[in-house]
Parts: sequence; C-alpha cells; structure tokens
Amino acid sequence: MYVGRFVVAGRTSSGTPFLGYRVSSRSFPNRRIVVAGERAVVLPTDDAPPTDNPYISYNCLRQAEGSVVVANGSHVDPIIEKVAAGYGLRDAMALALLALDYEHDAYHTPRIAAGLEGPSGALYVGIVADDRLCVQQAIVEAGQALLVATYEVTTPTPIDLAGDDAEALCDALYTSAYEHPVAALAVVIGPEVVRAARSAR
Amino acid sequence: MYVGRFVVAGRTSSGTPFLGYRVSSRSFPNRRIVVAGERAVVLPTDDAPPTDNPYISYNCLRQAEGSVVVANGSHVDPIIEKVAAGYGLRDAMALALLALDYEHDAYHTPRIAAGLEGPSGALYVGIVADDRLCVQQAIVEAGQALLVATYEVTTPTPIDLAGDDAEALCDALYTSAYEHPVAALAVVIGPEVVRAARSAR
Amino acid sequence: MYVGRFVVAGRTSSGTPFLGYRVSSRSFPNRRIVVAGERAVVLPTDDAPPTDNPYISYNCLRQAEGSVVVANGSHVDPIIEKVAAGYGLRDAMALALLALDYEHDAYHTPRIAAGLEGPSGALYVGIVADDRLCVQQAIVEAGQALLVATYEVTTPTPIDLAGDDAEALCDALYTSAYEHPVAALAVVIGPEVVRAARSAR
Amino acid sequence: MYVGRFVVAGRTSSGTPFLGYRVSSRSFPNRRIVVAGERAVVLPTDDAPPTDNPYISYNCLRQAEGSVVVANGSHVDPIIEKVAAGYGLRDAMALALLALDYEHDAYHTPRIAAGLEGPSGALYVGIVADDRLCVQQAIVEAGQALLVATYEVTTPTPIDLAGDDAEALCDALYTSAYEHPVAALAVVIGPEVVRAARSAR
Repeated sequence: MYVGRFVVAGRTSSGTPFLGYRVSSRSFPNRRIVVAGERAVVLPTDDAPPTDNPYISYNCLRQAEGSVVVANGSHVDPIIEKVAAGYGLRDAMALALLALDYEHDAYHTPRIAAGLEGPSGALYVGIVADDRLCVQQAIVEAGQALLVATYEVTTPTPIDLAGDDAEALCDALYTSAYEHPVAALAVVIGPEVVRAARSAR
Repeated sequence: MYVGRFVVAGRTSSGTPFLGYRVSSRSFPNRRIVVAGERAVVLPTDDAPPTDNPYISYNCLRQAEGSVVVANGSHVDPIIEKVAAGYGLRDAMALALLALDYEHDAYHTPRIAAGLEGPSGALYVGIVADDRLCVQQAIVEAGQALLVATYEVTTPTPIDLAGDDAEALCDALYTSAYEHPVAALAVVIGPEVVRAARSAR
Repeated sequence: MYVGRFVVAGRTSSGTPFLGYRVSSRSFPNRRIVVAGERAVVLPTDDAPPTDNPYISYNCLRQAEGSVVVANGSHVDPIIEKVAAGYGLRDAMALALLALDYEHDAYHTPRIAAGLEGPSGALYVGIVADDRLCVQQAIVEAGQALLVATYEVTTPTPIDLAGDDAEALCDALYTSAYEHPVAALAVVIGPEVVRAARSAR
Repeated sequence: MYVGRFVVAGRTSSGTPFLGYRVSSRSFPNRRIVVAGERAVVLPTDDAPPTDNPYISYNCLRQAEGSVVVANGSHVDPIIEKVAAGYGLRDAMALALLALDYEHDAYHTPRIAAGLEGPSGALYVGIVADDRLCVQQAIVEAGQALLVATYEVTTPTPIDLAGDDAEALCDALYTSAYEHPVAALAVVIGPEVVRAARSAR
C-alpha cells in the first residue's frame, strides 16, 4: 500500500518516547534527510532535477527546550517556535495546521505532524486535511507506536517497528511494508536525544 | 452510562441532514431548551436555584444563511458568526474551539459542536478536550447518525435514533439509553428548517 | 465626548503598572462592578430591568500567575486561560479577539482588552473592530497611561489620571471627562495586587 | 534611512487601488522579483552565492478571485489561500501572522503584508512583530498611499509615489528615498490587474 509520507509517535520496549518520519514518494524519489544541529532537513539529492515545487525541501525535525517535532513540511517551524514561546504542543500544532492548511496541490495532500511535549512528556499527532483538523495525544505503551500518513492511513494507526535505538528504528521505518521509501528519520528522546537518518541515495 | 451533554449529526431515512443536542446533567437538572427565532437557548427553569456558573445558560443552536450549528456552550456563537463571515465550518469550529478551549471546571469538560455547512451540505462534528482538538466531517448514510459526548463517548460514535421528523428525533434523543436526560433538541434541515425541543420540566 | 466602555494601561508616578476599566453606557446604566477573588464582574444592579442581552454581565478582570487582564466582555476569560496555559499575552489576546470578534450588535461594538504579562512585566492593549485587529505593547513611562475605547478613541491614546493607588485611580477613571460613567475599576500590580471598584448605584 | 523591506497600499490619482512591495537589503542584494502567472516571486540572481536562509526566496504576490496580497515572506501563501476559502482579508492576515509570527532571525524581523479584498474593495495592511500584531484597513484617498516596513516605519505611514500605472509606481518604489533598494513590484488593480517589477541586476 502506498500511504505517502508518514509520521510516527511511539515508545521503545523500555518506554522511552521516540518519533519517526518517512518520506515516501512516487514523484520525487531523489531526496535525502540530513541531520544538522537542532534540526533535520529534507533536501534534493545532487542528481535531482531542478524544481520550484515549494513542498520538496523543508525542515522535517525541530527541537527546542526538550520538545521535539517532526512533520511533512514547513509547518514544523511555527509549531516548534510556538512551543518555545510557551504554547502547549496541542495548541501549537492546531494553530499552525489551521493557518497553513493542507498542501494546495492536486491531491489536497494533508499536513501531518508528531511531537513530544517536553514539560509533560506527552506525545501528540496531528493532521489537517480538507475535511478535517485533528490534534490528539498519542497514548502508546512501551513497545507500541502510532502512525499518521498523508494518504489512506490518515487516523492514528498502530505500526510495528522492531528496534530500541534510533538506528534500528530508522531502518524499521525505511523498510516497513509501505511502498516507495525515499528517506527515513528516527529520534529517540531519552536523557540524550539521539537521531538517525537513512536515505536511498 | 452517563456521557454528559452530547451532540448528534445524522441523516433521516430519506437522507435529509439533521442535528441534535441533549443536555444530560447530574448537577443542574432544572433546565430547559427554548426555541426562538434563529436560535435555541438552554435556560434555567423557573424553580431552579440561583447560580453564577457561567456554563448553565447559553445558546445551544444558531442558524445563519443555510448553515446550522449546535453546541454545549457559548462557542456556538463565534462558530456561526465566522461561518456567516465566509469561513468554512471546519475552520470556524477549529478556531473557536482552539480559542475557547475546554470548560475550566473540575472535570475539564470538553466543548463539543455539530453543524451543517450550508453551501456544501457537509456535516461536521468537533471537540476540544485537554488532550485533543478534533473537527471532522461526519460521513453518515441515510438512516445513520454520529454522536459526540462530553464524557466517555468523545469520538464520533454511531447512535440509533428512530424517527424522521424533528419531533420524533427529539423524543429519541431525550429517551435514548444515556443517563440523566434534562432537555433535548432536534433540527431537521430540509427545504424548511424544522426544530423541536423537549424538557423534563 | 461619549467613547463607550474603555480600558487603560499605565504606570503610577513610581512606575508601578496599573490597569483600568470603565463601563460607560447610554443604554444600560443600571450596572455595577463587583470585585471577588481573582476576578471582577460587571453585574446588573438590583433595580435593573431584566434583559437577555448577552453583553450586559461578564467578568471584566481576571488574574492568573502574576498576569492580569481587563476587558469589556467575556473574552477576558479565554485570554487569561491561555496566558495561564503558557501563551504570551500578545498571542492570547490576538487569538481570543480573532475568534470572538466584535460584538454582533447594531454598532459592531469592538472588543477591547488591556493586560499585564506577569513574567515580562510588559503591558499590552488590544482591540478587534470590523476593520481592524490590533494587539500591541503599551509603552508608558511612570505617570503615564494609555486608553483604548470602543468608540471614537479606538487607538491607544494618552489619558491623564491623577492618583497613585487603586482607589484614587478608580476615582479618576470614574470622573474622567468621558461621558456617561456607570462603573469603574482600577488594579495596581505591585508586590501586592490591589483593586478598587466604584459604581454609580 | 534604512527601513528594510516594505509593503504599500494606495490609490492612483483616479482612485484605482494599488499595492507595492520593495526588497531592500544590506545582506542579500543579489535578488530579483519575477512575475509569473498569478504570483510574483523573489529569487536569487544567477550570480548570488548559495544560501540556506529560508527567508531569501518566496512568493511576494498572490492573486485569487479578485483579491491580491503582497508580503515579505511565505505568509502570502496561507493568506491568499484562506481568502480563496472564504475568509475576509482581515482574518486571513491575522491568522497567518499569528501562526507564523516574526522571522526568527537575530533582528526578530517582522512579517508584513498588504492586500486588496476583492469583494469589498477594501485595502488592508498588517504586521506581526515581537511586541505587536496589527491588521487594519488602510484608508487612503485618491493619490495617497500608506507604507509599512520591517524596521523604523512599522506603523502605517504616508508615502509619496509619483505615477498612475504599474510601471511608474514600480519605478517610484524602487527609487524612493529609503536605502538599499534591491527589487520592486507594483500591482494596479483596475478592470485588469497590471503588474510591473524591477530589479537592480
């Protein structure tokens, strides 16, 4: 099944929270995820054809003051900036998704996000589609994870991911059964924040 | 089961959209719903003890330009006013629920709403709770309805309501199995908008 | 000049911040301001004729965690609740004013507010009218104050108020040259928060 | 005086509304404005050094259904999209500015915008800075214009622009006394929408 890009919020077998993001794409496979400083970025590969599509390149992870957000587009920036300004993650996600809305492409592709609220330790997932705006706490036990994708699986749905560290979880995201993987990112938010990214090219 | 107040979005057996609202209450049973002009209001009965609780008395239905909204509190007003100003119902609900948030009582009682978007004919339900803000289109076939309540049944859930006109649907809402009915309102939005209300006292 | 209700943000001669609110009214003079707990409320006097006008009675002052907000309507509640949830005062005012909008009466009466942001000590004033939404920091020196009213004086404008304590400032608000005073409230936010209210009847 | 980027809302000598935008920059002079289809874009020139600054390249003009918006960043997109969805321009500007906030650079550079609301013909200007969020109708007579800039001139301020067509107004914007011009854009919204852009390089 092709579900497009997806975000994941889960806990390792020991209960440590983690987030994941995978770029899946039929149209723009020439992309990679680069981890740098307090963010990760989706970028075209060096051999990618030029494009002016504004949804191709964007921060897909931002951290601030113990909170972490992953997303399928530039809404990750206002979300983390409002969290840094004092908003709860529920409100930061809801406001950014309401204002920026779905992507105005031919599919009305939803904007999706997942995050960890530093002060409370709560995990949240969110989506805005043309018929919906939902931000909700992701209640996951140790060893469980929930996925929200841009297509087909657009409500929080369990996903089975083997692995307890960022590398293994990133591999599990990349190789999961959903079609057309392009790049994957996992971030485990324990005493340290550990990130791993993997791309096809 | 006690689920508190609840809203309903459904379609009659012939497919005509309808909305419903029921006041259920353990603490304030002395209330009634009065239909007047383009609105319906929850009011204390004449024998109710005085209270300064701001959540006791409020518009619970507003109409404007073919759109209709029911809700468990004063958020019905900004929702219908933004719809009248041109917003889609999804955005009007999301903005009002984000700004007004859950009721700041001991239970963090959610704000809930249901509505019909006049231009599109789409039905929506929405809720804001301390862990969630969700507004979504209610996809219901003829003869079906979805309920969202303040407690227990806080995601859209099928409810079986016998009847095809406002009177019958109002009775079905009032006498449904959920506990502590106080007052009920149904509005059927066909070529005419027909409303019916029923209270215990 | 009749300017309707107005809010004030200022500093005493020693630089202590204060806020003020005055009810001025041609239509509903039978009202008073009652200070109670962490709030102040505009209420009808005992001899007021009954009304179902939703804009007659409302909290006009709320405090939470060092922040204080005064306003000409029920928007004071979501503003202070969002501040208590972590929002900055600029954002809390802007969101509530955007969502609740001007009063839907014959005059499109603006909603106005003034507040002190506890953590920063910054004063803000805000207004939403049918042609405008403005929230801005009120830069005032010791001995100065700015007023925003619902009519005529709808942008921040200096007002001269004699007095350095809540009682004196409240009297100065009540007796200021603007017409049709009904009730006034002043709150001085020093090491203690001191409030004073005065009504005609 | 260096005021950074600025937007303009005005009327020609015959009363036809127009909007303007000028890129002024000390740091990134190698940019141009390209008009294409229903938008105009700020792009690096071919000889510009590479940068990953997300505020360098963006749509600076969007049109939809008779409404037109100019802005100093990507907020132009959600503003016009919400207008196309039915929002009034006041609300569309306020929501996008609230959600996206000032640019998170070393200067907290404000986001600014100007627009014409198609259905009403009203002109609006808006700004979000760290101490302010203001969106207001721009009341301008024939032959007048108001400017809002990112620095120094951050409240609506008259600007004298000679010319009555897009070319002349664009030249007037480019050559106005404010320092460090990089590129200018003017759009006159008469029976036809006529745009003109001019860049240094």
